[in-house]
Amino acid sequence: MKVGDRHYRTIWLDEDDPATVRIIDQRHLPHRFVIEEIHAVSQMATAIRDMHVRGAGLIGAAAGYGMYLATLEAQRTRKFAEQMEAAASLLLSTRPTAVNLAWAVERQLDAIAQATNPARAVQIARNTAGNIADEDAAHCAAIGVHGVALINELAQAHERQVQILTHCNAGWLAFVDVGSATAPIYVAQEEDIPMHVWVDETRPRNQGARLTAWELQQQGIPHTVITDNAGGHLMQQGKVDLVITGADRVTADGDVANKIGTYLKALAAHDNGVPFYVAVPDATFDWHITAGQIPIEERDPDEVRFVMGRDGERLTSVQITPDGATAANFGFDITPSRLITGLITPRGICPPDRASIMALYPEKQPIA
Amino acid sequence: MKVGDRHYRTIWLDEDDPATVRIIDQRHLPHRFVIEEIHAVSQMATAIRDMHVRGAGLIGAAAGYGMYLATLEAQRTRKFAEQMEAAASLLLSTRPTAVNLAWAVERQLDAIAQATNPARAVQIARNTAGNIADEDAAHCAAIGVHGVALINELAQAHERQVQILTHCNAGWLAFVDVGSATAPIYVAQEEDIPMHVWVDETRPRNQGARLTAWELQQQGIPHTVITDNAGGHLMQQGKVDLVITGADRVTADGDVANKIGTYLKALAAHDNGVPFYVAVPDATFDWHITAGQIPIEERDPDEVRFVMGRDGERLTSVQITPDGATAANFGFDITPSRLITGLITPRGICPPDRASIMALYPEKQPIA
Repeated sequence: MKVGDRHYRTIWLDEDDPATVRIIDQRHLPHRFVIEEIHAVSQMATAIRDMHVRGAGLIGAAAGYGMYLATLEAQRTRKFAEQMEAAASLLLSTRPTAVNLAWAVERQLDAIAQATNPARAVQIARNTAGNIADEDAAHCAAIGVHGVALINELAQAHERQVQILTHCNAGWLAFVDVGSATAPIYVAQEEDIPMHVWVDETRPRNQGARLTAWELQQQGIPHTVITDNAGGHLMQQGKVDLVITGADRVTADGDVANKIGTYLKALAAHDNGVPFYVAVPDATFDWHITAGQIPIEERDPDEVRFVMGRDGERLTSVQITPDGATAANFGFDITPSRLITGLITPRGICPPDRASIMALYPEKQPIA
Repeated sequence: MKVGDRHYRTIWLDEDDPATVRIIDQRHLPHRFVIEEIHAVSQMATAIRDMHVRGAGLIGAAAGYGMYLATLEAQRTRKFAEQMEAAASLLLSTRPTAVNLAWAVERQLDAIAQATNPARAVQIARNTAGNIADEDAAHCAAIGVHGVALINELAQAHERQVQILTHCNAGWLAFVDVGSATAPIYVAQEEDIPMHVWVDETRPRNQGARLTAWELQQQGIPHTVITDNAGGHLMQQGKVDLVITGADRVTADGDVANKIGTYLKALAAHDNGVPFYVAVPDATFDWHITAGQIPIEERDPDEVRFVMGRDGERLTSVQITPDGATAANFGFDITPSRLITGLITPRGICPPDRASIMALYPEKQPIA
């Protein structure tokens, strides 16, 4: 997507040095655009854990490239298999909620298992990492093609600007390109459909205010940042036509784990008859789990006590709570399928129930 | 209430100089405890508009004292009545949503109208301001006495710590003393009922993280600050036994205008069978309005773009949105009575419907 006049993905292999992966270090956005070079799987694990990169799809792609970097390192030792297992464990330990991470690590392990020697494994891992990234981008693009129909219908029904609300950042910064929740918006822009996006700031890390607002600004999409508290009021006032969010995991029953606060917006949408859609690349489905089994990450309470931002030219954090205050920081919540109008997948839009989901994914066999 | 070892109200007349009103300038909390001297109605209007004082009850008391200061100023001119009208307009223009402000200004105008000369008007206004403050404190105390029964019942039913969630600050800092939503909590503390309070941070101005957390800390009540996004998840997990919020206006039909985001918590409470109570001093009822007519204050978008806090020893604001970002800042929302379990009033607890409310307030004649 566009940053200024240039096109970027969120992660890519250095053209001149295939032992270097480049990422956008999103901690500095929207105030600074910083590209970080990653040379080792341990560095990639830190980048995932400390959220230089974040978002379901990008975490998967980062894990894929992390496993590739691990093959380069393991190749230089005599314990290739052991090293790769350690790398997999390290990556898996970084973030618990998004299924993409485990999925990418396992896909790499399966692929590498086909290799007859370490050199071949490096080659396979590099291709697999590239494929994971390319497929992520392709899946998001397909979500855009299906999802734009929803926006178009509303534009035609209301004969005015369509008002879309989104929570957190399920934009291109959360994926490799295009994004999931934003994909239909970017296609709608190409089709000149008039629209405006309400951007939930998404405390505690403000991915909406920092990242979604920034990426919509770069693409020239009209938008307004609001507090997480405001969406219900906007829906009561008829100022939201459509909600689209992303997801960190979706079960075969259509229950959705997503950024904390998604459930509250789904309740408000349901209460006000506003359609609530969740955009889901294939890799976000978890066929092996029910909603109650999804681990909910509890993060550092300092993310609640402090807010990051720009003070003059300086990036800093300010403490908002009293000294010594106790805080808790739940990262995700579960939105039950009964509150969801539909899932926008790369294979089409479907209601959030097992029969409809399995009709789109007949090759999958849910074991939960 | 306690600040360190001393007892304070949020507003009081200087003992030695009856032309000076003292307030706690809450903009500096929780980082600094600052007392401000107010000498003129214009200064009081600024203190209300810029939220040195805030909260339904305290705004009413501040307006009462503002009108008293206005009599002192008007007495020195030849245009007493005109001056008082101007003072009333000025105060009424500061904040639109809380009904207490208009109620206090009108009560002062009615009282002053009985005076036969300006000197007598000054005396009457001073007494009336004192009465408004004392009644606010008494009403809150009565709310505590009625509301503690709810906490006590839950403690006995569960035989463990009662988990209470509150939104924004409807504590003593929002009133003259004791608070509305917090009043039952402070009485429960006196009765040694075990409890813990989940404190919504309450963006954009973080009155929960800054003020409620601070006042609970000063009183020694166990509490945890959470983001506004987290309450729904906590309720889904069975970690909330009771929600108590304050209100800025309540209609005769039991619909509640309160801090933005209250509606979202009420939806979650309803969805999870968690009792949702609103604590309401008499002056918060508006007998002349329906929910749809309540004006919703839209405040400066910079309150969304920037977050106030402490950076080392410095109080400052950090910008969280991109440069040039558009933001919107709706201050309140309406929680319909169907989502509310009951109202805790100084006269007792009642379901949020017209018949029950009028049974508690038989002398009132709603004209909406």
